[in-house]
Amino acid sequence: MESLMIWMPIAMAILGLIYMWIKQSWVMKQDAGDGKMKEISDYIYEGALAFLSAEYKLLAIFVVIVSVALAAVSFIVPTTHILIVVAFIFGAVFSAFAGNIGMKIATKTNVRTTQAAKTSLPNALKVSFGGGTVMGLGVAGLAVLGLTSFFIFFFWYFMGSEWTSTMDMTIVLETLAGFSLGAESIALFARVGGGIYTKAADVGADLVGKVEAGIPEDDPRNPATIADNVGDNVGDVAGMGADLFGSYVATVLAAMVLGNYVIKDMGGSISDAFGGIGPILLPMAIAGAGIIISIIGTLLVKIKDNSAKESQVMGALNKGNWTSIVLVALSCYGLVTWMLPETMTMEFFGEGLQEISSLRVFGATIVGLIVGAVISSVTEYYTGLGKKPILKIVQQSSTGAGTNIIAGLATGMISTFPSVLLFAGAIWASYAFAGFYGVSLAASAMMATTAMQLAIDAFGPISDNAGGIAEMSEQEPIVRERTDILDSVGNTTAATGKGFAIASAALTSLALFAAYVTFTGIDGINIFKAPVLAMLFVGGMVPVVFSALAMNAVGKAAMEMVQEVRRQFRDIPGIMEGTGKPEYDKCVAISTEASLREMMLPGLLTIGFPLIIAFAPLAFGMDKLAIAEMLGGYMAGVTVSGVLWAIFQNNAGGAWDNAKKSFEAGVEIDGEMTYKGSEAHKAAVTGDTVGDPFKDTSGPSMNILIKLTCLIGLVIAPILGGHAIEEKRTETIEVELIKNNTTAPTKEVAKVELKSKNFEIKRDVTIEVNPDNESLAQATVVITKMIDGKEVVVTKKIEGTLKEVEKKAEEIQ
Amino acid sequence: MESLMIWMPIAMAILGLIYMWIKQSWVMKQDAGDGKMKEISDYIYEGALAFLSAEYKLLAIFVVIVSVALAAVSFIVPTTHILIVVAFIFGAVFSAFAGNIGMKIATKTNVRTTQAAKTSLPNALKVSFGGGTVMGLGVAGLAVLGLTSFFIFFFWYFMGSEWTSTMDMTIVLETLAGFSLGAESIALFARVGGGIYTKAADVGADLVGKVEAGIPEDDPRNPATIADNVGDNVGDVAGMGADLFGSYVATVLAAMVLGNYVIKDMGGSISDAFGGIGPILLPMAIAGAGIIISIIGTLLVKIKDNSAKESQVMGALNKGNWTSIVLVALSCYGLVTWMLPETMTMEFFGEGLQEISSLRVFGATIVGLIVGAVISSVTEYYTGLGKKPILKIVQQSSTGAGTNIIAGLATGMISTFPSVLLFAGAIWASYAFAGFYGVSLAASAMMATTAMQLAIDAFGPISDNAGGIAEMSEQEPIVRERTDILDSVGNTTAATGKGFAIASAALTSLALFAAYVTFTGIDGINIFKAPVLAMLFVGGMVPVVFSALAMNAVGKAAMEMVQEVRRQFRDIPGIMEGTGKPEYDKCVAISTEASLREMMLPGLLTIGFPLIIAFAPLAFGMDKLAIAEMLGGYMAGVTVSGVLWAIFQNNAGGAWDNAKKSFEAGVEIDGEMTYKGSEAHKAAVTGDTVGDPFKDTSGPSMNILIKLTCLIGLVIAPILGGHAIEEKRTETIEVELIKNNTTAPTKEVAKVELKSKNFEIKRDVTIEVNPDNESLAQATVVITKMIDGKEVVVTKKIEGTLKEVEKKAEEIQ
Repeated sequence: MESLMIWMPIAMAILGLIYMWIKQSWVMKQDAGDGKMKEISDYIYEGALAFLSAEYKLLAIFVVIVSVALAAVSFIVPTTHILIVVAFIFGAVFSAFAGNIGMKIATKTNVRTTQAAKTSLPNALKVSFGGGTVMGLGVAGLAVLGLTSFFIFFFWYFMGSEWTSTMDMTIVLETLAGFSLGAESIALFARVGGGIYTKAADVGADLVGKVEAGIPEDDPRNPATIADNVGDNVGDVAGMGADLFGSYVATVLAAMVLGNYVIKDMGGSISDAFGGIGPILLPMAIAGAGIIISIIGTLLVKIKDNSAKESQVMGALNKGNWTSIVLVALSCYGLVTWMLPETMTMEFFGEGLQEISSLRVFGATIVGLIVGAVISSVTEYYTGLGKKPILKIVQQSSTGAGTNIIAGLATGMISTFPSVLLFAGAIWASYAFAGFYGVSLAASAMMATTAMQLAIDAFGPISDNAGGIAEMSEQEPIVRERTDILDSVGNTTAATGKGFAIASAALTSLALFAAYVTFTGIDGINIFKAPVLAMLFVGGMVPVVFSALAMNAVGKAAMEMVQEVRRQFRDIPGIMEGTGKPEYDKCVAISTEASLREMMLPGLLTIGFPLIIAFAPLAFGMDKLAIAEMLGGYMAGVTVSGVLWAIFQNNAGGAWDNAKKSFEAGVEIDGEMTYKGSEAHKAAVTGDTVGDPFKDTSGPSMNILIKLTCLIGLVIAPILGGHAIEEKRTETIEVELIKNNTTAPTKEVAKVELKSKNFEIKRDVTIEVNPDNESLAQATVVITKMIDGKEVVVTKKIEGTLKEVEKKAEEIQ
Repeated sequence: MESLMIWMPIAMAILGLIYMWIKQSWVMKQDAGDGKMKEISDYIYEGALAFLSAEYKLLAIFVVIVSVALAAVSFIVPTTHILIVVAFIFGAVFSAFAGNIGMKIATKTNVRTTQAAKTSLPNALKVSFGGGTVMGLGVAGLAVLGLTSFFIFFFWYFMGSEWTSTMDMTIVLETLAGFSLGAESIALFARVGGGIYTKAADVGADLVGKVEAGIPEDDPRNPATIADNVGDNVGDVAGMGADLFGSYVATVLAAMVLGNYVIKDMGGSISDAFGGIGPILLPMAIAGAGIIISIIGTLLVKIKDNSAKESQVMGALNKGNWTSIVLVALSCYGLVTWMLPETMTMEFFGEGLQEISSLRVFGATIVGLIVGAVISSVTEYYTGLGKKPILKIVQQSSTGAGTNIIAGLATGMISTFPSVLLFAGAIWASYAFAGFYGVSLAASAMMATTAMQLAIDAFGPISDNAGGIAEMSEQEPIVRERTDILDSVGNTTAATGKGFAIASAALTSLALFAAYVTFTGIDGINIFKAPVLAMLFVGGMVPVVFSALAMNAVGKAAMEMVQEVRRQFRDIPGIMEGTGKPEYDKCVAISTEASLREMMLPGLLTIGFPLIIAFAPLAFGMDKLAIAEMLGGYMAGVTVSGVLWAIFQNNAGGAWDNAKKSFEAGVEIDGEMTYKGSEAHKAAVTGDTVGDPFKDTSGPSMNILIKLTCLIGLVIAPILGGHAIEEKRTETIEVELIKNNTTAPTKEVAKVELKSKNFEIKRDVTIEVNPDNESLAQATVVITKMIDGKEVVVTKKIEGTLKEVEKKAEEIQ
């Protein structure tokens, strides 16, 4: 059974995809409602498809350009294989396909949720969460399927499906990094483009519709209303899906890279029941188990009571979520103890090799699960309705928009305190447990529930859309009430989902960062070197500028939308009376074009900077290792600053949003109940306007920025060092080969491989030819291992024909 | 003459202080105007004094606590000398005294400027800039006087005023760090407390006075108006002065520390005409020259035309500023070539020792001067009236406060792009020129014009106050017009001054950071070690949380002010009619108390975090060097993030301010002229409300945060490593001491001192006793120096009595 473990993740992925297909069929079979509802739903569906196809066109161009560049690199750099191009293309296609599945099911589920809400709340939840489940399993299933398939293929292609050396495995994993790069590139388009789309449509619809024309939200007379609803899907469903797809793949990849280095630290090979690649298979196995566990988790999400409130719906979601977390912990225990050697040797930077029991790796996975759970609570505290920070913002709204803004900014800023301490603690603890392999497995364990997280996350925008459709198709108020309950819970899960996404991005980036260092073979990243420190500064600046560009992009795109909506109100006769039909498609087209155009500059910044840092000094003949260290400094700067700005922007945005929402039920300010329409509420609306691009565009984009930066570094790594370093570390010494029948002893060159500072191997080979029969010989092979200053000597003797002896002596490790 | 160079900076400082005293007397002799003007001016003066004395009380307590702590440390840790306490106290007292001088002269000059403005604009500039000059020279003169005196004293105390070893000089400089710590601690109180004070008073005065009661700014009926004017002095004069005092001292100190390491890299001693301490004296000499140059610069600032406009006033300031920058460049050339050895050996981290010509050090100083000049232009571009970013914010104001806020935030964020690239380039270039010594001298050169910068900076708030007094004492409109011209120029110089302050803080922190690494003796700061990376995250978070706390503090303090002003309007009869007298002192007291109380938490954060990071793991028995590296990671995180947030907040705040001001002259929005009172203007006012704490409280506080963090690290350094490392690096080897009259050869232990990776010294001593006369002996001392892999062997023979030989053999180096 053990030898089949390599196929296990694929089997789980296929199981997940089959379940997804069953669930999808079930959702599609649900009643899609009457004519008006269907019509609106079709508009949204078509709008979403329009965005997708426009995006895919742009993507195709992008993929071709990058593929050509990668191919060129693989021709010039001997350590990069052309297959990385194939992996890259597949990564991009899989990610796009996963986004496609999610978007389609979301836009089909919305109207069915509205229809279900006509019957009961439990039904509405069942349908909307069913749609979310399809999305979650699609993303997770495709991620595991793609990554594992390519691993098996490359493992066969480069190594003949058998362990040879960590060096060969490094080539396998470097090529596999192409898949991750492809996935993350698509995420850039989906997350940033989607973020701009959704806010441009939202602001455009609100500014002209609500403020200028005085019609309510989701009013069918508003030409931008369809674009607005499409935006929910484009941003919250497809964007989030692509984000987590990227994180998922990158995390597992990074853990595999570090698993390979565990094997390296253990002497270059281990013997286990998994063909000697247990530590590399483990992250994939955890991901595979996570799919099945997520299915179990989703089955637990249901309510029975038709008069249930938000808390009961939330409780049902929590039940499913917590169950899946506990199950992941259990399965991690099983997999870790089963798949890893009982004790491993790992190099701890600056502390040398240490013996690590597999249970400590399990400890690291628990750290990851705790981070995932705690970050959600932290986010919930800073952005949740009725919590202290929100109440404070509400209070500050009474003295105007200025104080509301200050309070919101301060809330977002302060929220970095517990979040960063949590991350810092997690880095420390998981590293203390099991080195950077531990850090990457913490991330893997946390990401194992991705399918469940996405299901919880995607049902929110579906319910939001369902509410919109109810409004636009003028349903009974009870329908809207029910969808509102789901929507309200969805807002909370959206905030916690963002916390999960940033936590995953942070841990993933760290794991990638560690993988980068091992790929380049540098000694570490020393910020006491001025160029490295300079790059740390530059890296720190990039997320800030990226955020500004994203916010400006929203502003520009929204202005175009405003002009178009104004034009339609002016030019289409009878539009306000409901007799003229708004041109929804034009607004959809504007959002689509503007978002894709406006994401170019931030995208260029993300991709361009690491390339400039790597290749500009290379052109000037700078030392490759020095460049690798500089790029590492840049990556660290982007990660630290990006995580901070992500938390700050997400939580400030979430807090402003809920401070505004607080006024709907009424809030007490200075002892007086204050409601919608008050001056304080207007101030809160201003805060929400600022918060919108924060929480839906620039904030979530940080995830992609930091992951993509680290991935680009990882793909560049072989060019900057990689195997070159290995060679540099291998010094040649002369070994005397005594063939005593020759006149003088011949000298043969053997190699001393300095595996690390604390670990080295020497092989001395002496071959003596039988003086009586020159075709017979005996050889003595002395292998000296220096481990942390202690010498271990193994001597082996071989006898046979001279040829045999020479061959065997060569092979002995 | 060369041997007297150590006294040169003191002489210059005293010259500067004498000139300051002359200028002060001249200002004080100017006409202070009529009764009403004097009365208001006295209120401001007394308010400022009230703040100062309250602050000093708090300071005294703080200084006592820290002194006791430092004394305790110096008793426990053998490498820390008790004199550090004395240095600390003097640093605090000097800084406070400098602040006192500045505050007093500013509050005396304001009314004289108003009076002078009655006669002509040139006179008004002369008086206000005269006050600024007093402030600038007071700060720079006291800084150089204090630092140099203590250096001379410690140099005499620890080394007998003669070069002994870099180790002894390290003790001198470590003790001197106490002076810098004292200065920077006061800066924390002055800058953060002052920042909270000024904004609490400002917001309180505006919110109740302007908005609720509808009376104009600076109206004498407003009880908070005096507090508001005091705030300008407390924040912009005393705060900025303390900030630059701290930067100035820290920069020179850091450059001295790195100068000492230059000597170390050159083999532990150099012979020059300056007693072998040329590289250490150089930064002090540059500072000394800078004082005289600043005096020359200030003499050039004058205008003749009474009908001059802003541009002419600005031109006069620029003339003085540029002249002083050029003169500093010239004097750097002279001093560098005169005081440094023509070629030096410096260790470049990871690249080994390199030969450096002194001209390359001059190159580094030019880099510093360029940074100082360019950062001002960058700041001017992003915050200047009529510039593109401001016009864009103005445009975005037309669609409401929300879009105005987004535009302002984005402007601040984007402004980090050129600023950070500039800093990164400066780090790189100055390091490439002359290692970290180059970085610290770049900072020193930039800071040489501190007196001039402060003069330019301080005349702004003086003119602002003068305008306020003109308003309150109901002068002719022409008086206010003239002070307004000065005030307007002052707003620009305030923005560029903030740019200068953050640039100086950034470079100073880098120099301190480098000094820290050399003090602890760690190999560097490797962020690939997980605990170090975790601390990089934590460090990055602290400036964000600090900013939030500062902003919240302003909010709280402002609310108290609002309550008090409301109470006075309600309770004092006839206050609105001008018959009742407002209780100005109560408002002053509220601002004073609230600001000092509210700065506790951010202060605690600044001081507490590095202490926890250093001592908590120490308590758990963690390796000291590992802790030192973690603390280094923390310092780097604070610096990178702090610089980013400082630029972001300062520039966003400055941009909002000037966007609002643009409406005063009228702006064109969508082809229509828009003025004060329009909806767009109201949106711009909201932006300014948000920007106020950004640019006057949290933004400038970042400077102190990053410098103080690095200074605390520097003071802790000896505890975490310092000389301990030296000992660790000294391995003992056994040397056979042959006394052939004893039965067995006795063994004596000699020391091998590993000075650095590339430089080591071995001493082998063999003493042979004369077999004929046991009291006579001869010794062979073999000194082997390994420099970059090359071996230099020196053998010396000594003959004499056994005692003599033993003693001499010991002494030979």
